[in-house]
Amino acid sequence: MNWQAEITSAQARVAPHIRRTPVATVHAFGLPYKVELKLEHLQHTGSFKARGAFNTLLSQKVPQAGLVAASGGNHGAAVAYAGSQLGHKARIYVPEMAGPAKINLIESLGADLHVVEGAYANALNAAKVYEAETGAMQIHAYDALGTVAGQGTCMAEWEAQGLEADTVLIAVGGGGLISGAMAWLDGQRKIVAVEPETCNALHAARIAGKPVDVDVSGVAANALGARRIGDICFDLAKQQNIEAVLVSDEAIILAQRALWKEVRQLVEPAGAAALAALMSGAYRPAKGERVAVLVCGGNIAPDPFTDL
Amino acid sequence: MNWQAEITSAQARVAPHIRRTPVATVHAFGLPYKVELKLEHLQHTGSFKARGAFNTLLSQKVPQAGLVAASGGNHGAAVAYAGSQLGHKARIYVPEMAGPAKINLIESLGADLHVVEGAYANALNAAKVYEAETGAMQIHAYDALGTVAGQGTCMAEWEAQGLEADTVLIAVGGGGLISGAMAWLDGQRKIVAVEPETCNALHAARIAGKPVDVDVSGVAANALGARRIGDICFDLAKQQNIEAVLVSDEAIILAQRALWKEVRQLVEPAGAAALAALMSGAYRPAKGERVAVLVCGGNIAPDPFTDL
Repeated sequence: MNWQAEITSAQARVAPHIRRTPVATVHAFGLPYKVELKLEHLQHTGSFKARGAFNTLLSQKVPQAGLVAASGGNHGAAVAYAGSQLGHKARIYVPEMAGPAKINLIESLGADLHVVEGAYANALNAAKVYEAETGAMQIHAYDALGTVAGQGTCMAEWEAQGLEADTVLIAVGGGGLISGAMAWLDGQRKIVAVEPETCNALHAARIAGKPVDVDVSGVAANALGARRIGDICFDLAKQQNIEAVLVSDEAIILAQRALWKEVRQLVEPAGAAALAALMSGAYRPAKGERVAVLVCGGNIAPDPFTDL
Repeated sequence: MNWQAEITSAQARVAPHIRRTPVATVHAFGLPYKVELKLEHLQHTGSFKARGAFNTLLSQKVPQAGLVAASGGNHGAAVAYAGSQLGHKARIYVPEMAGPAKINLIESLGADLHVVEGAYANALNAAKVYEAETGAMQIHAYDALGTVAGQGTCMAEWEAQGLEADTVLIAVGGGGLISGAMAWLDGQRKIVAVEPETCNALHAARIAGKPVDVDVSGVAANALGARRIGDICFDLAKQQNIEAVLVSDEAIILAQRALWKEVRQLVEPAGAAALAALMSGAYRPAKGERVAVLVCGGNIAPDPFTDL
């Protein structure tokens, strides 16, 4: 796989449709060093997911039956948005834990939304049934080439914006975003995978030596709660032997509050998980090591306006 | 006055202490054109005010009696922060309408905070009395050379970040931020002053031909509610004959919600006022005219975390 070529192609494809999200370097969060931030929650629909959705839709022929996706919420919103922008109908399955903020967001984008009992895996099963019955195009949330190449445009963009860091911390759910980063960087910078203790699909897979099912729960579960790490992510993480750390829900909430208090960025727990690894000491940079944090999602619940 | 030299000196002075705030270009808010944003609410203490406070403190000898400032909230927080960073005690007077979010912020920065009944002008009077009695250094919120030169670093920085706009929209309270922009740009780009209908000190001054007192109220009053426009702002606006528009509170609230909904930026009403001028049509760019909006403050009340 020539990932760099895939991601470069994806960049050209998605450029007219996605935002070049801002970056900032701040000395904050009680840390004795500066941190580069990429504020990817300013992306369309509030997370990086629009990148993978547009890349997939623009690189394949979309059938008459339209699109189908299963999602904890952010991927569903991105597919609904990309579908509406490009004129495709979209059926989205989300688990109840997606929560009202994300459910309202997806509905507002005009998708045919179905809320499924239980966790993300149940939504994925329902999406597979719909795909088989109708011939709709399934856009996988993380474990597909088009999705990963699309998410890889985020890291490519960040480098073009002057990223200086030796080490980039990225939150992991099913592994789409970090796979894109690993694929693009190919070892040229260190990547640290950050998982909540209660959504630890990558950790469990590394212990087992292969992707295995895990139970998911906690404050970031509706974004990072994949039952099983994607094969693409597992393989890249193994090849590149990247470092992986765990953070507690308490650490995530502290990082979420710090992002609001110190840089006025109100993000969902998953968007704060990578910073939590620095603030909690789960990852401690060496002296002089320059670090960067990818802030990946901002669809917080309750929504400060619409859920009032 | 060689404003460009003053602002260039200010830039060197404040650079170690302030943040280079991020910029982004977005197609959003229901507008048929792109808008460049500067996200100055990521500045220390949540608004541009830290620029003027640091510039003032670093360009004058601070007396033993320390600092005093009157503020609707944001300037007080900035003076408290700059004072604490540079080792000066600070007494801050705010009107009750500063609200709990800003009052808590100032207290958390270790200032000697006094809440005064009535509007901003009463806080300013109290600060003048304290200055006269103690010899403390007064840092004016907007109508002082050091303050304006400091705020001017925001526009200088934006140009260095590649600002392309023909026209920049900036909210006006007492006029410190827009004065810095006028001083720096010196007519090289068009500036549009945006005031709430209910905090219209610049408008009233232009009608009267000189700064006059106005009543202030409405959703942005604790940030834009100066009773009288600063002389510096009035004079620069007259010399440069800049365009000025008014926006309703309803338009400000719609812009505030749009900033959250579409780019996940949760800002205070004053921070959304400049965008409100575009969304409401109070300012309509010509065909092909490139526009930019300065998002100037994010200290929203209620605070999504600490006021829960």
